[in-house]
Amino acid sequence: MAEHKKQLNIAMVGSGFIARAHSNAFHQVGRFFDSPFELNTKVVCARDTNKLDRFAQQWSWEQTGTDWRTAISRSDIDVVDIAVPNALHAEIAILAAQAGKIIWCEKPLAVSVDEARKMSDAVHGKPNLVWFNYRRSPAVVLAKQMIEQGRLGEIFHYRALYLNQSGVDPAKATGWRYRLSEAGSGASGDLLSHCLEMALYLNGEIEEVCASSKTFIKNRDVDDAVMLMARFSNGSIGTFEATRFGVGFRNSLSFQIHGSKGMLQFDLEDMNSLRFYDATETPGVQGTKKLMVPGPDHPYVRNFWKPGHPIGFEHTFIATLGDFLSALQTGTTFHPNFNDGLKVQKLLEAISRSSETRSWQRSLLNES
Amino acid sequence: MAEHKKQLNIAMVGSGFIARAHSNAFHQVGRFFDSPFELNTKVVCARDTNKLDRFAQQWSWEQTGTDWRTAISRSDIDVVDIAVPNALHAEIAILAAQAGKIIWCEKPLAVSVDEARKMSDAVHGKPNLVWFNYRRSPAVVLAKQMIEQGRLGEIFHYRALYLNQSGVDPAKATGWRYRLSEAGSGASGDLLSHCLEMALYLNGEIEEVCASSKTFIKNRDVDDAVMLMARFSNGSIGTFEATRFGVGFRNSLSFQIHGSKGMLQFDLEDMNSLRFYDATETPGVQGTKKLMVPGPDHPYVRNFWKPGHPIGFEHTFIATLGDFLSALQTGTTFHPNFNDGLKVQKLLEAISRSSETRSWQRSLLNES
Amino acid sequence: MAEHKKQLNIAMVGSGFIARAHSNAFHQVGRFFDSPFELNTKVVCARDTNKLDRFAQQWSWEQTGTDWRTAISRSDIDVVDIAVPNALHAEIAILAAQAGKIIWCEKPLAVSVDEARKMSDAVHGKPNLVWFNYRRSPAVVLAKQMIEQGRLGEIFHYRALYLNQSGVDPAKATGWRYRLSEAGSGASGDLLSHCLEMALYLNGEIEEVCASSKTFIKNRDVDDAVMLMARFSNGSIGTFEATRFGVGFRNSLSFQIHGSKGMLQFDLEDMNSLRFYDATETPGVQGTKKLMVPGPDHPYVRNFWKPGHPIGFEHTFIATLGDFLSALQTGTTFHPNFNDGLKVQKLLEAISRSSETRSWQRSLLNES
Amino acid sequence: MAEHKKQLNIAMVGSGFIARAHSNAFHQVGRFFDSPFELNTKVVCARDTNKLDRFAQQWSWEQTGTDWRTAISRSDIDVVDIAVPNALHAEIAILAAQAGKIIWCEKPLAVSVDEARKMSDAVHGKPNLVWFNYRRSPAVVLAKQMIEQGRLGEIFHYRALYLNQSGVDPAKATGWRYRLSEAGSGASGDLLSHCLEMALYLNGEIEEVCASSKTFIKNRDVDDAVMLMARFSNGSIGTFEATRFGVGFRNSLSFQIHGSKGMLQFDLEDMNSLRFYDATETPGVQGTKKLMVPGPDHPYVRNFWKPGHPIGFEHTFIATLGDFLSALQTGTTFHPNFNDGLKVQKLLEAISRSSETRSWQRSLLNES
Repeated sequence: MAEHKKQLNIAMVGSGFIARAHSNAFHQVGRFFDSPFELNTKVVCARDTNKLDRFAQQWSWEQTGTDWRTAISRSDIDVVDIAVPNALHAEIAILAAQAGKIIWCEKPLAVSVDEARKMSDAVHGKPNLVWFNYRRSPAVVLAKQMIEQGRLGEIFHYRALYLNQSGVDPAKATGWRYRLSEAGSGASGDLLSHCLEMALYLNGEIEEVCASSKTFIKNRDVDDAVMLMARFSNGSIGTFEATRFGVGFRNSLSFQIHGSKGMLQFDLEDMNSLRFYDATETPGVQGTKKLMVPGPDHPYVRNFWKPGHPIGFEHTFIATLGDFLSALQTGTTFHPNFNDGLKVQKLLEAISRSSETRSWQRSLLNES
Repeated sequence: MAEHKKQLNIAMVGSGFIARAHSNAFHQVGRFFDSPFELNTKVVCARDTNKLDRFAQQWSWEQTGTDWRTAISRSDIDVVDIAVPNALHAEIAILAAQAGKIIWCEKPLAVSVDEARKMSDAVHGKPNLVWFNYRRSPAVVLAKQMIEQGRLGEIFHYRALYLNQSGVDPAKATGWRYRLSEAGSGASGDLLSHCLEMALYLNGEIEEVCASSKTFIKNRDVDDAVMLMARFSNGSIGTFEATRFGVGFRNSLSFQIHGSKGMLQFDLEDMNSLRFYDATETPGVQGTKKLMVPGPDHPYVRNFWKPGHPIGFEHTFIATLGDFLSALQTGTTFHPNFNDGLKVQKLLEAISRSSETRSWQRSLLNES
Repeated sequence: MAEHKKQLNIAMVGSGFIARAHSNAFHQVGRFFDSPFELNTKVVCARDTNKLDRFAQQWSWEQTGTDWRTAISRSDIDVVDIAVPNALHAEIAILAAQAGKIIWCEKPLAVSVDEARKMSDAVHGKPNLVWFNYRRSPAVVLAKQMIEQGRLGEIFHYRALYLNQSGVDPAKATGWRYRLSEAGSGASGDLLSHCLEMALYLNGEIEEVCASSKTFIKNRDVDDAVMLMARFSNGSIGTFEATRFGVGFRNSLSFQIHGSKGMLQFDLEDMNSLRFYDATETPGVQGTKKLMVPGPDHPYVRNFWKPGHPIGFEHTFIATLGDFLSALQTGTTFHPNFNDGLKVQKLLEAISRSSETRSWQRSLLNES
Repeated sequence: MAEHKKQLNIAMVGSGFIARAHSNAFHQVGRFFDSPFELNTKVVCARDTNKLDRFAQQWSWEQTGTDWRTAISRSDIDVVDIAVPNALHAEIAILAAQAGKIIWCEKPLAVSVDEARKMSDAVHGKPNLVWFNYRRSPAVVLAKQMIEQGRLGEIFHYRALYLNQSGVDPAKATGWRYRLSEAGSGASGDLLSHCLEMALYLNGEIEEVCASSKTFIKNRDVDDAVMLMARFSNGSIGTFEATRFGVGFRNSLSFQIHGSKGMLQFDLEDMNSLRFYDATETPGVQGTKKLMVPGPDHPYVRNFWKPGHPIGFEHTFIATLGDFLSALQTGTTFHPNFNDGLKVQKLLEAISRSSETRSWQRSLLNES
C-alpha cells in the first residue's frame, strides 16, 4: 500500500548490539514519523555467518553477506549503515562515499582526527549522519528548544557525566571496546564522545580543554575514565567526566546547565523527564520542576505515544532517523553529520593530548 | 527467510490509539521474543475509511475493511484482535469465538459481569488474552517474582493509585470514554481495572470491597473518580483510587506493598525501576532501593536492550504478546485471559454496587 | 538581659520522648521567634524519679516532682504542659484549667469525644494549645498559604498517609501506645489524628467517613492500621491511611491534594520541601516542582536559618510555640487548640464507629 | 542542678549568621550530648553595638563588648570562638592562643598558608577546632564508617560539588564574602573548602590538583566559581566544583564516591539520607538505596530524636561540639582542628596557583 514512497535500500555492516538498535529504527521510523521514504533492510554483512543468519531473520534483513565491500557497492543499495568497531568506520565510509551512497555511521566517527577529516571530506555532498542518538532524546530536544528560547539566559556552567560500571570486572570487559587497535580509545570515544557532542549541540563551541585520563586495570591499553575542564566560546565553563568505573550506574548520561535565568538537568536513566528551574519566577515558588517528556507542546508529541506514556532507548535512534529523512526530503543539512563527528574527534584528540601533556589544549574546532 | 514459522493472520477491529499500540506489538514481538509464530497484519477494520487507509499504511496492514463481521470470519484469519470501545467487545469476541479464532481483547473485557461471563464461556477452549498490558512491565514482573520468592513475607498492606488529569477539562474530555453507553463506566473501567488486575496478580483474591465513586462534572454519566477499601484473602488490607481528576499526573499507575519482610513500590511514570525495601537486612543499612529494570537476572533481560537502556509503554504490549505466543506454543494457559477479565469485571461490579449502596460488598470472585 | 520580658513559668507533666521535644521548644522558641514572653522551665513531674533527675538536668528544669497535682496548682506556675499517655490528659487538663493555667496538651487531645468535650469546656477562656506540631512544618504552612491564595482552584482529591513500621515486631512494640487503657486507640489516635488535623486545616470540614481498621497482632487491643474514605464539605473526596505496619518507613506523614489549578504534595521524611504542580502554566512546561522551604517569601524565613539550610523535627514544635506566644500577645485565638482537638476526636470516634458498623458515618463536627 | 559539671566560659567574636549557629550549638550541645562540661555564653564581641545587644539577648550571652582583645584575654574565659570574616581569624586566634585559651575558629581557617601555619603553630598544645561542621552531618559520618568498614572496596572516583546561587545578583552579593581583602577568596574559601575538608576526611590525601577559577562579574575581585581535577594518594581520581553561580540551588553540598564494592552519594539539601549502592549484592537486586539517617545503628542515634525524625543544619554544629567536648574529656585529638584547617589552606593555595599557572600543582600536604 506504500508503493508511492521512494524506496531506500540499506546495506548494513555489523550485527552486534548497536546493529540491532539500527535495524529496529529502520523498521520503526515509518510507524512514528511521516516520510516519503520507505526503508528496505536489504542486506546485512558480518563475519560470523552463524550468528548472522539468526540476526537477519530476527531483524528481517532480506539478504546476508560476509563481503561488505561488494554489498556496499551494489547499484541497488542507496544507503550504507556502519555498525562495526570504530577502527573499521573509515574504510567503509570512504568506499561507500566513493560509491555515491548515503552514509550513516555509528559514533564515534573515527579513531583519529586524520581519519575523521578524510571521512568528512569523502562524504562531502552526500547525505550523511553519525549515530549520536542521545541528542534526540525528547528531553534533550526540549532542553535545546528552551535554551534557544533564552530560558536559561546567559550560561555560566555546563556539567556532564557519563557513568557506567562496565569496565570494573576484567573477566567481563573483554570485547573490542577494550582494545586500542579496534576502539581507538576507551571511555573517551565510547562515552565521553556522547557528552561532547551534546555539549556542542546545547552550549556551542568549546575553545580549550584540560583533561586527565586514567586506566585502573593493569595492561589494559585504553582509558577507563577521563575527566576534564572546558572553556566554552559563550563564556561558560564546564566539567566533563566519563567512566567505566562508575559503580552504581549502568548507563547514566547526564548534564546540568546553570544560566542567569534558570537551570536544566537531564539523566538518561530517567529519560522521560527533564528538570527545569526557572529563576525568573517569583522567588517563593522557584524550584526544580520535573517536566515529563514528550509533553503537550513537544516537537515529538505526535510521533510516539502520548504524554505520560514512556518511550525508551530505541526511540532516540528512531527520532534520529525520522529527522534525517525529513532533512533528506527538504534538502536541508542534517545534524549530527560527519562534520559534527569530526568536531567531536578534534575534541577527543585535544583531550588526549591534554591528558598526556598535563596542560590546557586548544580545541581547534574551527580550523580545517 | 522465515518461511518455516507458523503463520498467524490477524484481523484487528479498531484504529484508534490502542490499535496503534497493538499493531506495533504485532510487528515487534518477533524482534524481541523468540517464537515459532510469524504474525501477519492481514486486515484492519474501522468505520472511518479516510483515517483507516492512513492507519493501515502507517502500521503495514495488508488490507482494510469496514465490515468487521466479514473480516473476522474469513477462513484465512487465525486471530481476532479487538481494539474498539468497551461496549463492542462482547459481540466481536463471541462471533470470533464462534468462528474458532484466537482472540485478543482490549481491557476492560466488557461492560458488565453478564457480558464478561458470556465472553469467557464463548472463548472456552480457544487461546485468549485480555490486554492488561501493564502487568508485563518489567518492574511488575520482578515484583511478582520477588513476592513469590517470599521476599515480602506476610503481606499487610496493598495500596494502588491510578492518576491522570484527562477528565478535568470538559471541552477536551469528549470521546467515547466519557459516555456510559460506549464505555460502560468511567475511571473504574478505564483506570481502576488495571489496578485491580495487577492486585489480583500480585496479591491474590479480593474478598470484599467498600467503594465510593464521584462524578465532578455535571451531566457526565460516568464516574470521574473512584476510591475503595479492600480485604484480601491473604489477610492483607488494601486501598485503591483511580481518577481522571488527578491533576499533576498523566499516567501514574502505582502500587505499594508492605509485608513483614519488605516493601515494594512501583510507578508507571518511572517504569524502568522498582523500589524495594528489604526489612531483613541489618537495620543500619536498611533503606528503599531503586532497582533498575530489566536488571541482569530479569526474565526479560535478553528480550529488549540491555540493563541501563530504558524501555517504554509499547514494550508492555510486546512482552504480553511474547508470553502469549510462548504459552500458545507450549499449550499452557496464558494470563491475563478472559477468565481473568471476568474476575476484574466482578470486582468492578461489586465496587459499583458498593458505591451505590454505601456498603461493603463481597466480590464473589470464585462463584460462577 | 531579658528582665523586661513577661515571665511564663511552666510545669510539665511527663518525661518521655515527647517531653524532650516540648522542653527543647521551651528553650529554643526565644532564639527563633520574637516574643515578649520568657519561658521558664520551672518544674517537671514524673513517676520514675531516677530518670527524672537526669531528664531535668539535661533539659534544664529547675525542679522535679512526683506529684503533678501539687505542681500544676502552684501559684507561681503560669502554664501546664501535658506530655503523658493519652488517658491521663483529661484529668490534668481539667485540673489545670480549674487552677486558671494556660494549657498545652500533647495530641491526641483525649481518648473519647466525651472527655475531649469536657476538656474543651474546661479550658474555655484560657489560652490553650494541642501539640499537633506537624501543621507547623514550613512546607505545610506554605501549602496552606497557597491553597488560600487559590493556587489549587477547586479541590477534587485529598489523600493522606501516615506510615511507620513500629508495630510489626511484638517484642519491641510494648509501650503504653500499644495498650488500649492508656492510649485509647492505636494507629488512629497516634498517627491518623495528625492526618485528620492537617486535613481539617488544609481542606476544611469532613462531613462523613467510611473506615476500616485492622489489628494484625493477636491479643493486641489497639488498631495497628486504619484506612478510610471521606467526603469533605467543599465537595472533594479523600482517602486516609495510617499504619504501624508500613514496612519501609519510619515516619512518613504525607498528603497529596489535587485541585482544578494544581497539585500539592508533602512528605515529612523530606520535610524541607513541598511539591507543587501548577496546572495554569503553559502546558509544555507544566511539571511537579520541588519547592525548598522555607524559601525567600516564607512566613518563617526569618525565624530559622536561611533558605537552603534544612530544619528538622524539633522546629515544628518551636514554630507551634512561637505562633502560640504571638497569639497570646495579641489576644487572638490560636489553632490548633482544644476545640480543634475535639473535632479530631469526633472524627476518630466516627471512624471507629464506621469501622465497627461497616458503614458510612457522619462526622457531626459542628454539633455540640 | 549541674553544679558538678566543669564550667567553660566562652568569649565569642562575631555576631553574624554563623555566630547564631555557634551560639545555638553552645546552648544545645548539653541537651543532645552527654558531657562533663557546662558551656557558659559569657561574652560576645562585635563592632555594631545596636545589633549586638539584640543578638546577645536572643542568644543569651551574659555580656557584650566591642573590644575583643580585652574579652579574649579575661582570666575567666576558657574558650575563644571566632565567628568573623576570614581575614580576622589569624590575629584573634594567635592572641587567644597566647592567652592559653581553647580555640574554636570558623572555616576556612585563614586567608593564606602562611597565616594558617602560624595559627596552627600558635595553638599547638591547646585544644582547638575548625568549624567544618558538615563533616558531622549524620550521613557523612555514616559514609565514613562504611568506607572504613571497606564497604566501598578500592576507591576509583571521588566527585564533589558545592552549588549555590548567591553570587548571581551583584546588587545582593555585597557583603564581606565578596571582598578579597576580608574573605581572602570567593567560592574557593567559602564553599570549596568544605568539599576539600570532607574529601580529605573520607578519601584521604590529595597529591596534586589542576584547577581553573572564574569570576563572572566584572570588577569583583574574588572567584565566583572554581573547578578542579585531583589525584588522591589512594589511586583514585576526583573532580571538584564550587560555585556561587549554580542557579537552581541554595546550599547543595554533594559528593559521590565509586569504589570496587559500591557507591555512596550525599547531598546536603537532602541531608537526612545517604545513598548507597552495594555492588556485592546479587546482581538482580543491586540498586541505589536511600538510607535514612540517623538510622538504628548510627553513632548519633541516641543523640538527637529518633530514626525517622529529621534533623537540620544546626545539628551539624551541635555534633561537632559534642564530639569536641568528648575528645577534650578523654584527652584525644579532635578533628578537624587547626592542622586540618592548614591542610585545606594548602590545597586552596595549590588550587589558586594551578588556576593562575594553568598547570598541575602538587599539594604538599605533608611538607611543613
